[in-house]
Amino acid sequence: MTQNTSKLVTFGEAMVRLSPPEFRRLEQAHTLDFQAGGAELNAAIAAHRLGLPARFVTRLTQNPLGHMIENKAREHGVDTSCIAWTDADRVGVYFVEFGAAPRPNTVLYDRRDSAMAHVRLGEIDWECALRGADYFHTSGITPALSPSAAAETIEAIRTARRLGAQVSVDLNYRARLWTQAEARRVMSQIASETDILITTEEDTERVFGIAAPSYEEVARLLAREFALDAVVITLRETPSVWRNAWSAMAYDARADVVIHAPTFDIEVVDRVGSGDAFAGGFLAGYAKDGIELGVRWGVGVSALKQTYPWDFSCATPED
Amino acid sequence: MTQNTSKLVTFGEAMVRLSPPEFRRLEQAHTLDFQAGGAELNAAIAAHRLGLPARFVTRLTQNPLGHMIENKAREHGVDTSCIAWTDADRVGVYFVEFGAAPRPNTVLYDRRDSAMAHVRLGEIDWECALRGADYFHTSGITPALSPSAAAETIEAIRTARRLGAQVSVDLNYRARLWTQAEARRVMSQIASETDILITTEEDTERVFGIAAPSYEEVARLLAREFALDAVVITLRETPSVWRNAWSAMAYDARADVVIHAPTFDIEVVDRVGSGDAFAGGFLAGYAKDGIELGVRWGVGVSALKQTYPWDFSCATPED
Amino acid sequence: MTQNTSKLVTFGEAMVRLSPPEFRRLEQAHTLDFQAGGAELNAAIAAHRLGLPARFVTRLTQNPLGHMIENKAREHGVDTSCIAWTDADRVGVYFVEFGAAPRPNTVLYDRRDSAMAHVRLGEIDWECALRGADYFHTSGITPALSPSAAAETIEAIRTARRLGAQVSVDLNYRARLWTQAEARRVMSQIASETDILITTEEDTERVFGIAAPSYEEVARLLAREFALDAVVITLRETPSVWRNAWSAMAYDARADVVIHAPTFDIEVVDRVGSGDAFAGGFLAGYAKDGIELGVRWGVGVSALKQTYPWDFSCATPED
Amino acid sequence: MTQNTSKLVTFGEAMVRLSPPEFRRLEQAHTLDFQAGGAELNAAIAAHRLGLPARFVTRLTQNPLGHMIENKAREHGVDTSCIAWTDADRVGVYFVEFGAAPRPNTVLYDRRDSAMAHVRLGEIDWECALRGADYFHTSGITPALSPSAAAETIEAIRTARRLGAQVSVDLNYRARLWTQAEARRVMSQIASETDILITTEEDTERVFGIAAPSYEEVARLLAREFALDAVVITLRETPSVWRNAWSAMAYDARADVVIHAPTFDIEVVDRVGSGDAFAGGFLAGYAKDGIELGVRWGVGVSALKQTYPWDFSCATPED
Amino acid sequence: MTQNTSKLVTFGEAMVRLSPPEFRRLEQAHTLDFQAGGAELNAAIAAHRLGLPARFVTRLTQNPLGHMIENKAREHGVDTSCIAWTDADRVGVYFVEFGAAPRPNTVLYDRRDSAMAHVRLGEIDWECALRGADYFHTSGITPALSPSAAAETIEAIRTARRLGAQVSVDLNYRARLWTQAEARRVMSQIASETDILITTEEDTERVFGIAAPSYEEVARLLAREFALDAVVITLRETPSVWRNAWSAMAYDARADVVIHAPTFDIEVVDRVGSGDAFAGGFLAGYAKDGIELGVRWGVGVSALKQTYPWDFSCATPED
Amino acid sequence: MTQNTSKLVTFGEAMVRLSPPEFRRLEQAHTLDFQAGGAELNAAIAAHRLGLPARFVTRLTQNPLGHMIENKAREHGVDTSCIAWTDADRVGVYFVEFGAAPRPNTVLYDRRDSAMAHVRLGEIDWECALRGADYFHTSGITPALSPSAAAETIEAIRTARRLGAQVSVDLNYRARLWTQAEARRVMSQIASETDILITTEEDTERVFGIAAPSYEEVARLLAREFALDAVVITLRETPSVWRNAWSAMAYDARADVVIHAPTFDIEVVDRVGSGDAFAGGFLAGYAKDGIELGVRWGVGVSALKQTYPWDFSCATPED
Repeated sequence: MTQNTSKLVTFGEAMVRLSPPEFRRLEQAHTLDFQAGGAELNAAIAAHRLGLPARFVTRLTQNPLGHMIENKAREHGVDTSCIAWTDADRVGVYFVEFGAAPRPNTVLYDRRDSAMAHVRLGEIDWECALRGADYFHTSGITPALSPSAAAETIEAIRTARRLGAQVSVDLNYRARLWTQAEARRVMSQIASETDILITTEEDTERVFGIAAPSYEEVARLLAREFALDAVVITLRETPSVWRNAWSAMAYDARADVVIHAPTFDIEVVDRVGSGDAFAGGFLAGYAKDGIELGVRWGVGVSALKQTYPWDFSCATPED
Repeated sequence: MTQNTSKLVTFGEAMVRLSPPEFRRLEQAHTLDFQAGGAELNAAIAAHRLGLPARFVTRLTQNPLGHMIENKAREHGVDTSCIAWTDADRVGVYFVEFGAAPRPNTVLYDRRDSAMAHVRLGEIDWECALRGADYFHTSGITPALSPSAAAETIEAIRTARRLGAQVSVDLNYRARLWTQAEARRVMSQIASETDILITTEEDTERVFGIAAPSYEEVARLLAREFALDAVVITLRETPSVWRNAWSAMAYDARADVVIHAPTFDIEVVDRVGSGDAFAGGFLAGYAKDGIELGVRWGVGVSALKQTYPWDFSCATPED
Repeated sequence: MTQNTSKLVTFGEAMVRLSPPEFRRLEQAHTLDFQAGGAELNAAIAAHRLGLPARFVTRLTQNPLGHMIENKAREHGVDTSCIAWTDADRVGVYFVEFGAAPRPNTVLYDRRDSAMAHVRLGEIDWECALRGADYFHTSGITPALSPSAAAETIEAIRTARRLGAQVSVDLNYRARLWTQAEARRVMSQIASETDILITTEEDTERVFGIAAPSYEEVARLLAREFALDAVVITLRETPSVWRNAWSAMAYDARADVVIHAPTFDIEVVDRVGSGDAFAGGFLAGYAKDGIELGVRWGVGVSALKQTYPWDFSCATPED
Repeated sequence: MTQNTSKLVTFGEAMVRLSPPEFRRLEQAHTLDFQAGGAELNAAIAAHRLGLPARFVTRLTQNPLGHMIENKAREHGVDTSCIAWTDADRVGVYFVEFGAAPRPNTVLYDRRDSAMAHVRLGEIDWECALRGADYFHTSGITPALSPSAAAETIEAIRTARRLGAQVSVDLNYRARLWTQAEARRVMSQIASETDILITTEEDTERVFGIAAPSYEEVARLLAREFALDAVVITLRETPSVWRNAWSAMAYDARADVVIHAPTFDIEVVDRVGSGDAFAGGFLAGYAKDGIELGVRWGVGVSALKQTYPWDFSCATPED
Repeated sequence: MTQNTSKLVTFGEAMVRLSPPEFRRLEQAHTLDFQAGGAELNAAIAAHRLGLPARFVTRLTQNPLGHMIENKAREHGVDTSCIAWTDADRVGVYFVEFGAAPRPNTVLYDRRDSAMAHVRLGEIDWECALRGADYFHTSGITPALSPSAAAETIEAIRTARRLGAQVSVDLNYRARLWTQAEARRVMSQIASETDILITTEEDTERVFGIAAPSYEEVARLLAREFALDAVVITLRETPSVWRNAWSAMAYDARADVVIHAPTFDIEVVDRVGSGDAFAGGFLAGYAKDGIELGVRWGVGVSALKQTYPWDFSCATPED
Repeated sequence: MTQNTSKLVTFGEAMVRLSPPEFRRLEQAHTLDFQAGGAELNAAIAAHRLGLPARFVTRLTQNPLGHMIENKAREHGVDTSCIAWTDADRVGVYFVEFGAAPRPNTVLYDRRDSAMAHVRLGEIDWECALRGADYFHTSGITPALSPSAAAETIEAIRTARRLGAQVSVDLNYRARLWTQAEARRVMSQIASETDILITTEEDTERVFGIAAPSYEEVARLLAREFALDAVVITLRETPSVWRNAWSAMAYDARADVVIHAPTFDIEVVDRVGSGDAFAGGFLAGYAKDGIELGVRWGVGVSALKQTYPWDFSCATPED
């Protein structure tokens, strides 16, 4: 468990996560679970625990909430030395209510004016943060936070490519943060500088207007449109809130090969962050042995993540 | 959320509810969840949250347990200004153990000699409590508590009708409180002064000896026997303790029409109070748009209630 | 830790004890600590843990609450084989709110119509329960529960004396259960058949109307009035709710000697049951080495009991 | 406990209150207590429980956090029918860390851009909210939230006076919200339309630059400067974090009389909100029997509030 | 519930059981549930609660952990008077992580050098411990702990048979404690002095190398090989982690009859200890009415045990 | 908060720490707080949070308990890259019971055969672990664990000195681990290769037989005997369990100057680890500005540590 140079660098917002216990509504709660989470932090942790040393880059307010988030990242071994700290702004918060059929999970975000949304272009020294990295990963949430966050995301991607790292992006469209038109404009630009795109059929249609009769065709269209090396599509079926089936497929554009991961039947404890665990697991497997191990680890880690609480994966290669 | 005049008035006993966490038996518990509940209080809360301003009438002992119960009612917006307070008697208590197949939920009641059972005829000023109300609701539990509670229930029903309110009764037969013969004698009298009867097939047979090959027929027989405007029959299937299917049908006697609600598959967190939530949901929907919305809201609210803990519904029309 | 014959037999009511955590008022609580307690059960446990094998006799309703109480007694090694079980009546409950200066602790009792209050004279086989016992102990609470409980108490005391056991009584006057006149009538009769009386200055004056300028004189007057072998007076100073000073004195009437125990300064976690722990500790020390060790152990155990939660002592001779 | 017309109307911000249990730092917490609080809500609850029917007016975002705050107000009986609801903005949050000597309590506020700070002048119908009220109360926090909140506060005070209500203001200077110069400008205007001013020696000097050798003299100077009917000065000594001494004095300007309340030695469970409990207790006592009962109830309620957790008083006149 | 002479004596190790709540991994836990467990203690409790008075014999270190284990045994009524106490060695500990599909439960043992493993031959007075007993029960775990534990197990079995008790053994092969070769050598010797063998198809093959096309045949082969009176085979199907089907069959070698128990579909709260509950339930039923009631009670109690937490059965004959 | 090279390296055992909540005895607990602790880990965390980058070196078993300990170290920023991992041995555990006067805190250790005690000489690459470090710190606990741990400690100290780091040792005599004679033999050797010795008057006398009428004289004698640069003596007064006074003095042998730290009156939440926090605080202050800031930070951090739970300091320079 030696901490070598970080091979994976992820960039995005991490927030305080508050959730009522025991399926309570917020109005019924008297205590809240107090954790941290964020798509790219979740992905970094999942990858790091699978043996791909990871660094998480963000902007955080210097107060106990910001420190708590850094502590959680460090607890799981993720490098936090390139976080940009500020005395201004605030730490975003989200509230998760866990459901039971027919009531779905709900998430209430209170993330406006967070330190990450107010990041200023150039505030992060990407040369330093990315030196030695083989992979850079972010999601469609980060550029959706604010125009300056979008600009900084593109800056990071360009520096990553210049320094020889592969770029992975999880499309992850969030209707509460921006419109489909805004997303299409920014994400098209980002996708065209991306090597690996992780997405779902629905998001692909909503953001890029790309649809096709089969997953394989969607993947091929995406790869062609944005000159991608690989497209990964995750597949979830949810017969109820407490049960899930989860799988994925990948299209290796260089080899023109489609790979299908096995499907897992899952008893769901907490599905928040499962997509991020997939991304982290994919990258760790991909770094170790290519796309096939990537989708297998991605699906496996994501399935395990849903069997314990909170955003972070605890899975190791042995699991 | 302005508190206007209460349009619905409910009458019955509310108790302290104590339950062990995490499926423990009482003998395994070291802490108990401390809540309140009671059929008519539950119904009032469900209705109030759906937009039908509600008042709950009961008799309570003036001590921290009684105050806690009033607090819970007020927390959900229910009017408590007509509760009859006494320094005598006690607050009833019930203990709920949550099961898992093949072990069912069990409830241990310790409600003897409660303030509500000792209500004296005339102790509640029904003229005042019911003024302006459109609906009065109670259940078969209230008259089962004691002869004086039965007398006061009938007094309330008569005053309600005199003042122009419709009367709704949830049959709710409790074998631990009275015999079928006692129930038949009192409930027949009450049913004959009722407008809307909510019941199940089993209770109808046990209390009134009325059975028929179909739900529709049972409803028709009931409507004819007691000159009811509407009969509502709830339908529950329980393949296991953690899963449930829940639906209902209503017979509109004035229009001679049968209405079927959709069926919900439910992952059960806490089914205690789901019948009461149905009653409250039915009345709110009925008040808003007649019997059809009534059964739809009744079933929907009841399904949602089972997805979070405790007796009370948190559902709003949006849910 | 071999369970030999019980040398001490105690008799009284045990109840469910419910208390809010963290100094909350009952109206603020959402969970309650769920424990058991009762003066004579507490005394039996304190004595048993100090090496005096003890049996607790009571009457309990056969339900999970009654079983929980028996379980707690057994957990601490106390023999429960002579409990009288019934399907009728109920298990008493009391609610404890913990205070902080200037707010004192408060206790809300809900014990009416308990199985113990409804004990019928002759229902307990005292010949069997007391065979081989050297000491019988009860408190002024037991006869205060009901006339039949008082009659059964006197029956137990007489059987104990007949079988050669010494009788110890903790005066423990409870104004909520009976008047001073009632208490004086019954307790005078009981005291006259008692060997060891444990009391406070205030209770002595309220129940027997006996007062004197010094503790020693009060003890002498009591010993003379009721032909007692020993009188033990406990002394508590309470500068605040969280701090206490606790001591005791004993008058050995046979030797006409007064013994003073050391005083303990106590940081109070839970003072409920400290008087009962004193009685149990006194009896264990007295059985081992006479009155002097009795008061020392009584005060020591009582001080330790106040440093952890709930009614029961966990102290051992080494402590 | 009948809900008559509200005699007291308070106006201010209420927030979600999150606090780690067991003296933990936020960085150590895994759960947070989830409550509500706010100076004027706290005061309304304290007064209402002492028999002065109270209404709380604020602006809240329509989401589960806003509803939770309304629920808590209603739970304690406070009227919430004049709250202004909005779909915009957010609900403020504050985090409380409980200390132990030599570490003081700390509070981290995250209240920027709250619905209350964004209240628009005229958004609240003060004619309606204040009709029938005898007292209007607010604190120096409300006008400090934003210029529009200050304007609305002055609007409320003028309407209150026009409708015949007395105006009470708790000076409560918060350096994190505005400068002393800003505070002086606004609070001088408010004080000159106030009848009763509650303050401390320090705040008086910081906000108004008024100091004098004795509390009495400070009170006289304030009364003269702003033509006040009464000035109340609270006095706290804090020998440690877990112990407190608390008292108050009042100057009755109409009678030119100084009244001193007794001093309470307090074992502190939670001192947050104790000043607000004082204000509510003062108003309830004052409404019942004038300034002397006001300061006595104020100090007594405030002392009791510190002996249990959270912002709200549970005290009743009997306590 | 009178404690008569113990009719069943069980022998084995009891340990402290620590488990994270809410499906957390150990790395995610901040509190652990603190209970006790051990195959033969679990069996003794299950049998005792079903009316077969039981004694548990083990060796324990004299410290709060050892006392806690004794307390738990006594709480459920089991006699602990023949436990061998020592100041040396330690109390074993095991950590249970609860899973959700596709993640199974995991158990981490820290039991090396426990007091039970270090038991010395002859340290327990079996003459005394077994006097009056009708049944002696142990499992394949006990002899696996150490050579001296194996020797003491054989000593106990021989004494039991000499004193006229029937010997029951649950094969329970634990690969972490010994090899199959070691197990076969010792368990063959033990089985040949056993009357009733409880086992599974897999363990039978792993330990004795006995396999056959049907359960019935396996049972017959075992009975013939070791001259057993009865062979009981438990049957579990686990479609997922939260659902289970559980049944058993018994072969009555004296009557040459095969008995099948009904199958239960189980919603699993905690399956740890379910095999031990089966053994205890079997013995209680067998003692009451022979093998048929034995397998019925065994399966029924085992099913119920899985519906509440911790190792111990709470089931009574009524359940 | 950038993680530069570790300037401080500490070496010792870290264990799982389990403690009952709310002043319960272990026999009363149903859950235990699950944390980590260890003298040198505690010191590393205290120093790191005060700005002295720290690395913790130990030997740990590769299982969830070992990983949990590493996670906690990382959470607080401490470098764990030189921990020696093994599949053998076990992770030590200790149980803390919190007291209240007159009952002191008690600690039950279960640390025998831990991975750290079984460290083999040469197993840790000290050249690598210590490169770039300015300070090496350990305590008298580490060499007491086993002869091989003592040998490895001396190896570390010698390597540290060779690489130019100053060596700090906290004498910390543990009678449960070794005799005074053993301690004197090993610690004399260690002290003679030490630069800074942290101790108490009592430990100095017990281990080295050095006593004198004043602290200053004790410090001078120690400095002379072992050619130390600095001697730091901590001073604790404990009027009760919940209150403490804490101070320290230092003797700067090079300057022949005595420095006294201020005294703090402390309301104690958890005093476990306060001595270690002192050591860490001292080293951080010493590294920043010499001995005087060292003792001031040492006492200050140690006082703060006692005001929140668990072994680790959360204090920052601002506190």
